[in-house]
Amino acid sequence: MDITAGQLLRHIDDPSDLRKIDKEKLYQVCEELRQYIIDVVSVHGGHFAASLGVVELSVALHYVFNTPYDQLVWDVGHQAYGHKILTGRRDIFHTNRKYKGISGFPKRDESPYDTFGVGHSSTSISAALGMAIASKLKGEHERQHIAVIGDGSMTAGMAFEALNHAGVANANVLIILNDNCMSIDPNVGALKEYLTDITTSPTYNKLRDDVWNLLGKMPVGKRFTRDMASKLEASVKGVVTRSSNLFEALKLRYFGPIDGHNITKLVDTLQDLKDIPGPKLLHIVTTKGKGYALAEKDQTLWHAPGLFDKITGEIYKKPVNAPEPPKYQDVFGETIIELAAANDRVLGVTPAMPSGSSLKFMMEKMPDRAFDVGICEQHAVTLSAGLATQGMRVFCNIYSSFMQRAFDQAVHDVAIQQLPVILCLDRAGLVGEDGPTHHGAYDIAYLRGIPNLIISAPMNEEELRNLMYTAQLESNKLPFVIRYPRGQGVMPDWRRPFKAIPVGTGRKIREGKDIAILSIGHPGNFVTDAIKQLVIDGLQPAHYDMRFVKPLDEALLHEVFRQFEKVITVEDGTVAGGFGSAILEFMARHGYKADIKIMGIPDRIVEHGKPSELYRECGFDAKGIAHTVMEMMKNKITVVA
Amino acid sequence: MDITAGQLLRHIDDPSDLRKIDKEKLYQVCEELRQYIIDVVSVHGGHFAASLGVVELSVALHYVFNTPYDQLVWDVGHQAYGHKILTGRRDIFHTNRKYKGISGFPKRDESPYDTFGVGHSSTSISAALGMAIASKLKGEHERQHIAVIGDGSMTAGMAFEALNHAGVANANVLIILNDNCMSIDPNVGALKEYLTDITTSPTYNKLRDDVWNLLGKMPVGKRFTRDMASKLEASVKGVVTRSSNLFEALKLRYFGPIDGHNITKLVDTLQDLKDIPGPKLLHIVTTKGKGYALAEKDQTLWHAPGLFDKITGEIYKKPVNAPEPPKYQDVFGETIIELAAANDRVLGVTPAMPSGSSLKFMMEKMPDRAFDVGICEQHAVTLSAGLATQGMRVFCNIYSSFMQRAFDQAVHDVAIQQLPVILCLDRAGLVGEDGPTHHGAYDIAYLRGIPNLIISAPMNEEELRNLMYTAQLESNKLPFVIRYPRGQGVMPDWRRPFKAIPVGTGRKIREGKDIAILSIGHPGNFVTDAIKQLVIDGLQPAHYDMRFVKPLDEALLHEVFRQFEKVITVEDGTVAGGFGSAILEFMARHGYKADIKIMGIPDRIVEHGKPSELYRECGFDAKGIAHTVMEMMKNKITVVA
Repeated sequence: MDITAGQLLRHIDDPSDLRKIDKEKLYQVCEELRQYIIDVVSVHGGHFAASLGVVELSVALHYVFNTPYDQLVWDVGHQAYGHKILTGRRDIFHTNRKYKGISGFPKRDESPYDTFGVGHSSTSISAALGMAIASKLKGEHERQHIAVIGDGSMTAGMAFEALNHAGVANANVLIILNDNCMSIDPNVGALKEYLTDITTSPTYNKLRDDVWNLLGKMPVGKRFTRDMASKLEASVKGVVTRSSNLFEALKLRYFGPIDGHNITKLVDTLQDLKDIPGPKLLHIVTTKGKGYALAEKDQTLWHAPGLFDKITGEIYKKPVNAPEPPKYQDVFGETIIELAAANDRVLGVTPAMPSGSSLKFMMEKMPDRAFDVGICEQHAVTLSAGLATQGMRVFCNIYSSFMQRAFDQAVHDVAIQQLPVILCLDRAGLVGEDGPTHHGAYDIAYLRGIPNLIISAPMNEEELRNLMYTAQLESNKLPFVIRYPRGQGVMPDWRRPFKAIPVGTGRKIREGKDIAILSIGHPGNFVTDAIKQLVIDGLQPAHYDMRFVKPLDEALLHEVFRQFEKVITVEDGTVAGGFGSAILEFMARHGYKADIKIMGIPDRIVEHGKPSELYRECGFDAKGIAHTVMEMMKNKITVVA
Repeated sequence: MDITAGQLLRHIDDPSDLRKIDKEKLYQVCEELRQYIIDVVSVHGGHFAASLGVVELSVALHYVFNTPYDQLVWDVGHQAYGHKILTGRRDIFHTNRKYKGISGFPKRDESPYDTFGVGHSSTSISAALGMAIASKLKGEHERQHIAVIGDGSMTAGMAFEALNHAGVANANVLIILNDNCMSIDPNVGALKEYLTDITTSPTYNKLRDDVWNLLGKMPVGKRFTRDMASKLEASVKGVVTRSSNLFEALKLRYFGPIDGHNITKLVDTLQDLKDIPGPKLLHIVTTKGKGYALAEKDQTLWHAPGLFDKITGEIYKKPVNAPEPPKYQDVFGETIIELAAANDRVLGVTPAMPSGSSLKFMMEKMPDRAFDVGICEQHAVTLSAGLATQGMRVFCNIYSSFMQRAFDQAVHDVAIQQLPVILCLDRAGLVGEDGPTHHGAYDIAYLRGIPNLIISAPMNEEELRNLMYTAQLESNKLPFVIRYPRGQGVMPDWRRPFKAIPVGTGRKIREGKDIAILSIGHPGNFVTDAIKQLVIDGLQPAHYDMRFVKPLDEALLHEVFRQFEKVITVEDGTVAGGFGSAILEFMARHGYKADIKIMGIPDRIVEHGKPSELYRECGFDAKGIAHTVMEMMKNKITVVA
């Protein structure tokens, strides 16, 4: 489908083109940019509402600052579509998030304008501050460094750590707080309430007006001199006392709040701030989904809506023929409610992913017992540990790649203390279009070294339910990890009665004689498919769904290694230190010498694409597994990863 | 040596005994407690200054609150000696930090008064909040939950995440901010300056007096009723407007600052606060080392001084006979200065460990190029990544167990982007007396799964220098981990000319024929010692110092596995997924079938003790290695871990 950019936008191949446009026409650039995003995303998919909210900011930043020499870091980065379109990627923007296409996030090797790769939240201030300190050391005193960070991202501790340093670092860093009251779901916590106070309180608005009137007295159309800037600062200080504001308390000069959709005001303000040296924060207020009414109204739904009719706003759904398997997420969301209804010790915790994890089902039904704590993985895990000391059975649901943020808490607060927190790692394995920053590729490897931890992965919905059931039983005394992938499972009739799964037991799915395939979690289904083909080709592979990475089912493994001389392991995780590696350790301990192949995510960065494309690329889709079995049966050594 | 507690202290077997004492005599309890800490620590060693600083607070908390029903969480916990002595551990306090003795930190399985195990900073608010929410759910509305946290710990993002939740959680949690301007080294950052502003500003002091006068008007000797409390709150609000204070901005009721050494005031204040429901923060000001003049004067030196003469203050030093090998830390500290002198791109970053890491040498000589960023591991790593984007060669020095806090940043900001940040992981392996929370046991396992990462470990001082030299060369394009242990190396003559070590190359230390021993890092020296004995016993083991866990020296490994049918790996890290496991993966890829034993830290929690005691316990000291070799040579299968 051919999508044409508007009259002005079609000539902006680079921010230098943008800078040639009259300030008065920038509103039109914004309009065209917004429309282009709507046109492309409605047809090609992607994140949506966040980029619409920062159209004006994106234009203003590239208009005022000398990018890429001046360095711009977008926090999280799924709001950077406007930035991408303005910086030479307009005509390939339709490949966004597609296999071999451009990334949905800023990425250093994609463009010099993408100064820092992002994806996880709250890294931007640290990164921009690092760049600013480097510039200072190099004597590049005019160089500007800008971090754009949302109020949601600001709740993560990492952002606070960076603010605490920025305030005293005396480097040229401008933090733009993009306040839209949203993460993917509505933002939560004390900071959010504080920002709402600021933007609605008459005192603050008075203060703001004073400050901006003051700015208004400065010569128009001309940048401040440093002298004028310092006069301004002194005046501002007279109005805003040091400790009267959270950010001022952290020694940052605070400006705002201003309307982030007023392009003229944005441009003027950024112009002014450009010549004020040192660390400063500009608070802008925006509306997520701005300019697309439906998105403004339901910002969570329109965070990443999939394909839609841009005129009617109808979000396209896959046609449903037969009963379909549910998403693993929904199985989690429904199951925790069943468990909580039967056991009043059961609680749920999510760091800012109520919709994504489907914990929102429980938050709606049992608001006292399910918590969204904001983008705060560290706090989420230790809070869960604190709850567990009091006998609570907490399901703390964190995306696998975000669990990396709470690794220490899993070791220090959960595992060392043997607290039976249940860590549900959603989006484990290759997540697809979000790409390298979001793949849950490392969890088995980084968790497997931690003592006292039970690590499991269900092959289907029923196993997920039964693992959840098992984990919350009083008889379980240990922390319990359950990892499962994003998206659809395999069982339309998934809602079956609970059955405890003895910890550390796998199951034999299929007898065989030529070779044994040991799988963990969902990829067991790829094995099942592979075996169908292999049987046609005359082979009889055995298949074991191991269910637990830790502890391993040693009895079952002895059975396997006594019977088979050829073994393959399959996992949706890195081959460096993962499940396969645990099997190798078992073999070493017991002196087994089978030929063994470890299949999984190779030890390199895997880019974005559809999960099926990535499984194929990594060689452990059904076809890849069948191929490897055939090669092994020919006694050839194939190095898979 | 017999150490006798004072007249009152000797009868306090439990806080219930303390609570029988008249308030007027509490100052004497404090005096005796302080003296007891000095008496025991001077002779038996341990952390020192931090506990002296909270003597009054410890007494006041157990006096006012109904511990252990009321729940007290000490952040970090090395200041909890007074707490331990008051809660039934007076007579075993001399076993503090010794093998099989009590832990230097609060620990759940040691006492019901230790409600939450600590060691790493900034976990206390999350944990106490979890307990408070659990109490609320159980209807235990009078139950109190107290987190005591230092101003240093408050800089870590995790504490901010918890504050952000606490402010809106409507649970009974009292946060006591113990403000002594110190971490182990002087505290840094904007928050610290802000706290100094508060405690010294006349406005705040006026405000404080107003508040406390108001409190003074309340009936003496009687707790507030809820009604009175809410009146108080309203009055306080009249004085302190919501947004006038950083903590109030986060929706916490803020009280203080008050003198943390005034036992009467502390007791009265805590009494008053006890009946004010909801989240609140009390800011107390203390002096680290209080009551021991030398410690008050040099708080860093007296953080954990070792044994000393309590009268003269002389800190005992080991008698030096011959030139001794230096500490690995000092080799790092001296070497980075040499490198920085020759390469102006070289920078140093530490999250609050300038003394511990010896980065302070560079901070003194080159203050513009070496940074202490506070207890902010996450920020430290991403800041380093930001600096690296500008061509800087940053040595980011983090203790191995604290690196767990920055795991996501190592993946997301460093490795995925292939930024050549140099992560020096100090205190890797078994750290000794600090115990389970501080052992650097997991780093190889959790880092090994990350693509693009070079992971190395020096066997001695010269290798540490050369690895550092190699990592900062322009030719190195990848992130580079160098892990090394706490304490003394093995080379008195360590300051040798730099020599690049080709990445991914090990070295053969000793030819042999019976068995090959592959070691990584410092434990290679244990192997050397083991071989001395084995040679006497008539064996000829080969020894390889592999130097790199990733990438492995595959050429060398082919040589090993072609020649040897028996192989042992030795590492100072967990055997689950570590270096040995990497060797197993190599074997699987290439079809090698040697008998192999993996020696290292077993997959269970290893407690505290001297490193030598722990190495012996884990079986990879020289004797353990020699024993394993002998067993393997007898062709017996011994399971080491």
